[in-house]
Amino acid sequence: MSITVVGSVAYDTIETPAGKRERCLGGAATYFSLAASYFTNVRVIAVVGEDFGKRQESVFQTHNIDTTGIEHTAGKSFFWEGSYLDNLNEAKTHITDLNVFATFDPKIPDSYRDSEFLFLANIDPVLQRRVREQMPDVKIVAGDTMNYWIKDHRPALLEVLKGLDILLINDTEARMLAGTENLLQAARGVLALGPKALVVKHGEYGATIFHGANSKGNGAEIFRAPALPLEDVVDPTGAGDSFAGGFFGYLASQPEQTPAVFRRAMFYGSVLGSFACERFGTERLQQLSRKEIDERFNLFRELTHLD
Amino acid sequence: MSITVVGSVAYDTIETPAGKRERCLGGAATYFSLAASYFTNVRVIAVVGEDFGKRQESVFQTHNIDTTGIEHTAGKSFFWEGSYLDNLNEAKTHITDLNVFATFDPKIPDSYRDSEFLFLANIDPVLQRRVREQMPDVKIVAGDTMNYWIKDHRPALLEVLKGLDILLINDTEARMLAGTENLLQAARGVLALGPKALVVKHGEYGATIFHGANSKGNGAEIFRAPALPLEDVVDPTGAGDSFAGGFFGYLASQPEQTPAVFRRAMFYGSVLGSFACERFGTERLQQLSRKEIDERFNLFRELTHLD
Repeated sequence: MSITVVGSVAYDTIETPAGKRERCLGGAATYFSLAASYFTNVRVIAVVGEDFGKRQESVFQTHNIDTTGIEHTAGKSFFWEGSYLDNLNEAKTHITDLNVFATFDPKIPDSYRDSEFLFLANIDPVLQRRVREQMPDVKIVAGDTMNYWIKDHRPALLEVLKGLDILLINDTEARMLAGTENLLQAARGVLALGPKALVVKHGEYGATIFHGANSKGNGAEIFRAPALPLEDVVDPTGAGDSFAGGFFGYLASQPEQTPAVFRRAMFYGSVLGSFACERFGTERLQQLSRKEIDERFNLFRELTHLD
Repeated sequence: MSITVVGSVAYDTIETPAGKRERCLGGAATYFSLAASYFTNVRVIAVVGEDFGKRQESVFQTHNIDTTGIEHTAGKSFFWEGSYLDNLNEAKTHITDLNVFATFDPKIPDSYRDSEFLFLANIDPVLQRRVREQMPDVKIVAGDTMNYWIKDHRPALLEVLKGLDILLINDTEARMLAGTENLLQAARGVLALGPKALVVKHGEYGATIFHGANSKGNGAEIFRAPALPLEDVVDPTGAGDSFAGGFFGYLASQPEQTPAVFRRAMFYGSVLGSFACERFGTERLQQLSRKEIDERFNLFRELTHLD
C-alpha cells in the first residue's frame, strides 16, 4: 500500500568530524521517502525552488517515488547549515533559510488520494492538520514534530496529536511534550494526548514503542529495538526521518499491522536509521539494496536475541 | 562456583526526587554480593568500622554471603552522601569520608582461596592488583573502575587491565579510558589494553558486551541487553554494581561460560540493575526471590525479541 508524505525537501550544508559537504539533497521528506521506498510506493508533497532541477528529481524517481506533489515555485529551496563537531548526537544550527518553505501551502494531487498511509513529517502543525483533513480516508496516520512546535505552537500541535495513530519523536521531545523526565511517565502522558502509539527514538541506543494503552495512556505494551553501534558515524543528519521511513514503509508493506509486524517495523526503522549515518546526507540511502537491509535486520536480531 | 569480591562496604546518605534516606547500608561490594547471591555463593573482602554491627552483618549472612573477609577495625566505615535531584543518571557527591577505607589493606582468608571467580569492585587499582596476585588460581577475573582512577592513576590501572578477563564500566568511562567518543572505537581501544571482554553499561538504555576480539581489539562479537523502562526510579545508587553482581553471579553459576551463557548473563545483569533502582539503597536487593528475577528476565526477553 502506498504512503503519502508531507514535509521538507531541502539542501543541507553539513560539517561533521568526517568532513564537510555543501548543499546535499536533504529535508525530512527526502530522507523519509528514500528509506520507505525500499518497502512500498511513496508519494511526496513538498515545495522546492528554482535550484531544484531534473538531477534532484531523478533521485526520487530512481526509487519509484512519486514527485507529482512536489510544487516548483519561484525562489530558493529550504536551506539548512549545521555542524556536529563537538557532539555527533546534536546538531548545532548555523543557518536556517526557509525560502520557498516559508509560504508552503500543501496541495494534494488527486492521484495521491487513495493512499492508505500518511506521514506528516516535522513541519508546522497547522500544515500537518490541513493535510490530514484533506485525506480523510487514510487508514494509518503517523507524524513527527520537534521542540520548537512543542514549546511555541502547543495548541496547534495538540490538535494534530488527537488525530495521529503513531507519533515518532526523540527522548527530549517526549519528555518536553509530557513535562516529565521519566520515560514511562512521559510515554503515558503523550499517549493520553491522542496518539494510539508512540515511538521514542534514542539515537545510538535504539528506540522504544509504546502501544495499546487505554485512553488515559495506561497499560501500553512496550517493545525496544536496538541500534547498531557504528564504527564510523559520518553524518547523523536525517537518521530519525530515515528511522520513520523504514518503520512506516515496512508497516505499509504488510497486509495487516499486527503486534509482530510492529516489532519488525521497529527493527527496520533502526536498520534504516543506522544506514543513513554511514555517509553524508542521503548518499547511503540512495544506494541501498533490500538484501543489505535484510542482512542488517538479521545482524540486529543476532545483536539482541538470546537464542 | 563461588565468587570472591573485594570492594567497599559503606554507609550512604542519599537524596533523590523520591525522598531522602540517612546512612543506608551500601558500597560496591554490598550491592554486588547481594545481587550475585541469588545465583551463587559469594565471599566478601572489605573493611568496616565500629559502626558496622551484627544487624548489618546479618544482611549478608541472610543471603549466604561469607563475611569472614570483612575486617573490623577502629574508626568509622566509609561514608558517602550524594543527591540526584536534577539528574537521576548522575549523582552529585556532597561528602566522601573514606574513614577506615583510607588504609584498607585487603587480606584474603584461606577459606576464600578456592574461589574460581574474582570480582575487583571499584577501588584503588593498586589494591585490585594486590588481591589479584594473591589469588593466582582463579578461573575468571572481572573488575570495575571509575573516572578518578582512569584520569589520575592510569599506570596502576593499566596493570590491572592486563590481567582482567572482563571489565565492566559505563559509557563515559569507556570513552575516557580509550580517548575516543565513538563507542565501537572505544571498545576496541579498551580491549587492546588487555581485558578479554568489555561490558559497557548504558544506564537506562541497557548494556553492550564486546568479546572475542584479537589482541589489537578487532573482530569482537557484540551483544546488547536492554534495560527496563522503569515507572519509578527511586534511587539509582548501586545499579551498576548490581548489574555486575547479576552478570557475574549468573556466569559463575554455570558449568561453562559459552557465548549463550554470556548473553543470558547480560540479561541477568540488566535485571538486577533494574531491581536495584526500585527502592532506596540495597532495600530491593535484600528482598528479591529467584522467581521474581526470572519473571523479569522473561519480561526483558519479550521487550526485545521479535518472536
